[in-house]
Amino acid sequence: MSATDNTETTARRRGRRPAGQDTRTALVEAARAVFAENGYDGATVRAIATRAGVDAAMVNHWFGGKEGLFAHAVLELPFDPVELQQTLRDGPDDELGERIVRTFITRWDSAGGGVFVALIRSVAGHEQAGHVLRDFFQRFFSALISAIGSDRIPLRMNLCASQMVGLGMIRYVAKFEPFATEDVEVLVRAVAPNLQRYITGEIG
Amino acid sequence: MSATDNTETTARRRGRRPAGQDTRTALVEAARAVFAENGYDGATVRAIATRAGVDAAMVNHWFGGKEGLFAHAVLELPFDPVELQQTLRDGPDDELGERIVRTFITRWDSAGGGVFVALIRSVAGHEQAGHVLRDFFQRFFSALISAIGSDRIPLRMNLCASQMVGLGMIRYVAKFEPFATEDVEVLVRAVAPNLQRYITGEIG
Repeated sequence: MSATDNTETTARRRGRRPAGQDTRTALVEAARAVFAENGYDGATVRAIATRAGVDAAMVNHWFGGKEGLFAHAVLELPFDPVELQQTLRDGPDDELGERIVRTFITRWDSAGGGVFVALIRSVAGHEQAGHVLRDFFQRFFSALISAIGSDRIPLRMNLCASQMVGLGMIRYVAKFEPFATEDVEVLVRAVAPNLQRYITGEIG
Repeated sequence: MSATDNTETTARRRGRRPAGQDTRTALVEAARAVFAENGYDGATVRAIATRAGVDAAMVNHWFGGKEGLFAHAVLELPFDPVELQQTLRDGPDDELGERIVRTFITRWDSAGGGVFVALIRSVAGHEQAGHVLRDFFQRFFSALISAIGSDRIPLRMNLCASQMVGLGMIRYVAKFEPFATEDVEVLVRAVAPNLQRYITGEIG
């Protein structure tokens, strides 16, 4: 981890935030704010790094660039999506829909829902953000769905995306009631069977 | 219809577009463009009327104000939502989900999908647009669902909204494939059973 060590030294020498996880956290928080204010296109790596109080090079170091930072900060991915996938796979195939709905709502809730507003504003405002969102869902759901052997993976992935993105829109952005304040488990019981049908059911 | 007659005379005297349905159509087209460019908050009645080449008073005359114009132009309502509801009710209760999915995709498709981008941009950008969207769905789906006697109407309405808004997001805004170019009937077969469950099924 010599890159991290170098960074840490540089940051301390300049009297900025310490590097490592703190830098990463600061960048994620700054990115959420800047993406929410300016959308995907208007948000620059420089503006995000400045708000975080770190070197712009740290964005490449930790996230591989603006797209990766968007995926992590706004889509609320953990640092390693493979890890999240493993968590979701851990259980019966016919309860995968339930695990996905519960896991995503819980993580989005704990981030205050604000990340979802940033996501939608970015996707609506810039073609590129739609690509990032699609690439994420594609990789993420395709791997999950194909692991349990369903056919028509691309269409099923799109259907799952439509339900999960719509759920986020109504709970966090448009804030319909009772959806916006409903208990997680009520939403899981209502939505999970529909997601499960998209994953393993007969879809025409 | 003396108000319309007066308007027509005024418009002609000024050498502008003729009033009546043409005025309405011009306002709807101008509203779509201005809402898409500026979001709900940034779009002024004056800017929309100017682009349409009509008096700003026509917005109140035809749509009762900015909210009504937003609902008609962006949500793609027909002039009389009661008429659309009647169309949707015309058939078996257990096929209502199918009629809703087919009708909405067909109308959104024929408008080129651009109205959906305007809708999402507005909802993400301004609290008030979320209220307008919610009020529309509330009135529209609550009336449909309660007509066939389901319980838990508000939650069911929210669930329907989550699926339909998500469907529009993925087809028109984020443009996932195959969703963006898929035949309407493929989407109807895939999505309708899920919407039907939200309307009449066991939701926990």
